[in-house]
Amino acid sequence: MEEKLKELKNRLQEIYDLECASSVLGWDQNTYMPPGGGPARARQLALLRRLSHEKFSSPGIGKLLDDLQPYEESQPYDSDEASLIRVTRRKYEKAVKVPPSFTAEMARHGASSRNAWVEARPKNDFSMVEPYLEKSLELRQQLADYFPGYEHVMDPLIDYSDYGMKVSDIKLLFGELKKELVPLAEKIASQEPPDDSCARQHFPEEKQLMLGLEVAKRIGYDFDRGREDKAPHPFATRFSIDDVRITTRVLEDDVRGALFATMHESGHAMYEQGVKKEFEGTPLGRGTSSGVHESQSRLWENLVGRSRGCLSYFYPRIQEVFPEQLGSVPLETFYRAVNRVSSSLIRVYADEVTYNLHVMIRFGLEIELLEGNLPVRDLPEAWNEGYRKELGITPPDDKDGVMQDIHWYGGGIGGGFQGYTLGNIMNAQFYEAVLAAHPEIRSEIEKGKFSTLYDWLRENIWQHGSKFTTHELVERVTGGPISIEPLVNYLKTKFGEIYNLK
Amino acid sequence: MEEKLKELKNRLQEIYDLECASSVLGWDQNTYMPPGGGPARARQLALLRRLSHEKFSSPGIGKLLDDLQPYEESQPYDSDEASLIRVTRRKYEKAVKVPPSFTAEMARHGASSRNAWVEARPKNDFSMVEPYLEKSLELRQQLADYFPGYEHVMDPLIDYSDYGMKVSDIKLLFGELKKELVPLAEKIASQEPPDDSCARQHFPEEKQLMLGLEVAKRIGYDFDRGREDKAPHPFATRFSIDDVRITTRVLEDDVRGALFATMHESGHAMYEQGVKKEFEGTPLGRGTSSGVHESQSRLWENLVGRSRGCLSYFYPRIQEVFPEQLGSVPLETFYRAVNRVSSSLIRVYADEVTYNLHVMIRFGLEIELLEGNLPVRDLPEAWNEGYRKELGITPPDDKDGVMQDIHWYGGGIGGGFQGYTLGNIMNAQFYEAVLAAHPEIRSEIEKGKFSTLYDWLRENIWQHGSKFTTHELVERVTGGPISIEPLVNYLKTKFGEIYNLK
Repeated sequence: MEEKLKELKNRLQEIYDLECASSVLGWDQNTYMPPGGGPARARQLALLRRLSHEKFSSPGIGKLLDDLQPYEESQPYDSDEASLIRVTRRKYEKAVKVPPSFTAEMARHGASSRNAWVEARPKNDFSMVEPYLEKSLELRQQLADYFPGYEHVMDPLIDYSDYGMKVSDIKLLFGELKKELVPLAEKIASQEPPDDSCARQHFPEEKQLMLGLEVAKRIGYDFDRGREDKAPHPFATRFSIDDVRITTRVLEDDVRGALFATMHESGHAMYEQGVKKEFEGTPLGRGTSSGVHESQSRLWENLVGRSRGCLSYFYPRIQEVFPEQLGSVPLETFYRAVNRVSSSLIRVYADEVTYNLHVMIRFGLEIELLEGNLPVRDLPEAWNEGYRKELGITPPDDKDGVMQDIHWYGGGIGGGFQGYTLGNIMNAQFYEAVLAAHPEIRSEIEKGKFSTLYDWLRENIWQHGSKFTTHELVERVTGGPISIEPLVNYLKTKFGEIYNLK
Repeated sequence: MEEKLKELKNRLQEIYDLECASSVLGWDQNTYMPPGGGPARARQLALLRRLSHEKFSSPGIGKLLDDLQPYEESQPYDSDEASLIRVTRRKYEKAVKVPPSFTAEMARHGASSRNAWVEARPKNDFSMVEPYLEKSLELRQQLADYFPGYEHVMDPLIDYSDYGMKVSDIKLLFGELKKELVPLAEKIASQEPPDDSCARQHFPEEKQLMLGLEVAKRIGYDFDRGREDKAPHPFATRFSIDDVRITTRVLEDDVRGALFATMHESGHAMYEQGVKKEFEGTPLGRGTSSGVHESQSRLWENLVGRSRGCLSYFYPRIQEVFPEQLGSVPLETFYRAVNRVSSSLIRVYADEVTYNLHVMIRFGLEIELLEGNLPVRDLPEAWNEGYRKELGITPPDDKDGVMQDIHWYGGGIGGGFQGYTLGNIMNAQFYEAVLAAHPEIRSEIEKGKFSTLYDWLRENIWQHGSKFTTHELVERVTGGPISIEPLVNYLKTKFGEIYNLK
């Protein structure tokens, strides 16, 4: 059995290495690749993805998993060995249903589509990406069809990123949450909004980048095993447990964008850097789901980063870096500026209250698209209608409207957005749990000490990688199921205080 | 036949794409990879190299080449089709002799060794790289042994980079050249050296990089299909014909380093960008040899870049960028500073006269190592002895002595250095040919017009990719064999004038 387990690990290592090689190519595509590099890159990515899929879905892996089943059953459910076999089998059973040539086609098309988006977005030209979106939609529907018997066409797609979740569960959760968020946002909207002009001055890019790096290092992102570069859309990516990178985007006219994007991506990166070393090179060696990943990124960005305590620690340094802009601005003014609630155009810069409405609009549109009820050509209008209805604003153009996020234009229609709000829900649950265990964390953060929080997250969440499903992890950490209550309580308390609500 | 040729091209395309993916990983390793990324990167590179080697040396390729032989014979020798089959067969016959697992081992070891060098060099600690060098030497000897019947153990290694060249040929050429260079260098050394203090001031990195980019663009390097980044050792690399990148290294205390390194690497890049588009994805789609590649890089760096005419065009802009440092320095002083001949430590910064002595020292040491006459532990002393004997100086440390070049520490002992001097020899031959065809080029360059030269090189050299061997190309372009005479004449004329020699 040890022999077989070893052989399985050897094979998985190769697959993992091919996936990481793809990730390097993807990272370069989004950071440094010159325009001419696009077509060949699409081909290279398609080839690498096909090879890794071929290797993973080979009968040899299936045979090893069969042979290892008795061993798996002889081990405790949460042992590393049983978990490795279990999680690998789950992914294998999905993989064998999809032809590697189809995976290659998705990768090739996704990369080409992404190249078109990079060109089309600054030109505000939706028509340039429309044919790519049509094709992406077709491919995603085809992908779903490899999993007949689904309840909803988006379920198999969600299953890739948030295993165990279905459209019906998510609709339920989102519905409950919306019932709480809309009245809260309305109450807030009836108050005088804080003045955030202090954050909207000229902040030179270089200094913003330097500040972001300092903050990321301070909270615990290990730069001997990572780095930050610029990209049109911030993301985190992993080339190995010891090379986990992030990207950011800088707005020179708003100091909030890059700072909180960097904390967000650092949260993703710390999760990946914190996975148990022994899981490296196997399907256990990554964060378990999109939702849990977002719970970590948004925990650092918002629950920590936008808290008064954390800002009271970092703000003097921020003032030092930007003395002309912020030297005479009191902490409280800055705190309120970074927590200003308002209907806005851009998801990644949205406040904590309205953010989830941005996600829900996208989630709803994905359902419409995949169900075939919304033709791609009508998407920009449907987008604008969603923003009018849910947020009371109309995007002035497609660039900052329907074309703002890379997800759909990288080929991923369906399965990519629900994780953000699931993450918001869970991060409040996790933060409640850690504060119950370590109430001292609040005061530590004020002093710039993040290690108790960091260690607890690593111990209870990060190290497990993909060993536990989202549901299992939430149960283990919080003792209960996924619940919106902690998030609602958190938002009501925080913004009730800022906006002086009754 | 068309079917079979198409199938061959499809298979070659995949192999090419895998090789390009390796190159992306190698580029990242040398530019942005954080220290932690090293071990996984070595594994990833080994895997990709093994896969491309496996695919290339598969019997399917052999069968196609056999089937295509009658077709090849029916086509003219210099037709694209016959050349594709001929060159692919030549490379195939080499590839099948080496097991893919050995290729993987070389790649893995080369990457690990490179990581050790990056760490060891700043520490000036040869002992850290010594065991890696031992292993590299062993692997290179083993590689040679896959080609029994060689005249010299280094011949099969040279054959990879400079097909058709042998140690015996090169020794002969180098011997003749040395007979001319040593007296020339001695004559020069007896003269008062030009004052080069103007080039040795403080030149901020950012401005140097900006200037380098401007110059590279001006001479014809297409940045829509390329880019420049920083690296510990400058290099050029190709991810496709439309994504050819260079790197540079900046010395803030000497303006010459980055400027001429950038022109050098631009020469490599323009060669790769100029290959006939139809060759993309096949073994024809790259520069034909290390020697011809260096002939292009050094042509732009030296014959063009360090000429009075070219500098008279760029110097006013250089003064504009560095007004404090160079504003009051006459062109002639700067021209003499960038052409100062002196025995120096670092090959890549050496002047045109002594440069080849640096190469010959390395070439000689490689022979000694591979023949087994020089143990690795004695290499630093042998290096220093070589520098004392040939250049009359003793390196103060290993960092700027035996550890200065990446080549050996990336695993490549043997086959990597001869190309530089072959390139110098050929670039003078090629430049003589182009000036004979277009004497107006000299005056065009003074006006910043590089297109006649660029077009001629593309037409006569670049577009052919690997279609012709080095010897064939020299014969086609110059009407004769490789000869040191044009280089010797060039050096005697140029430096005779600068140093006022009789």
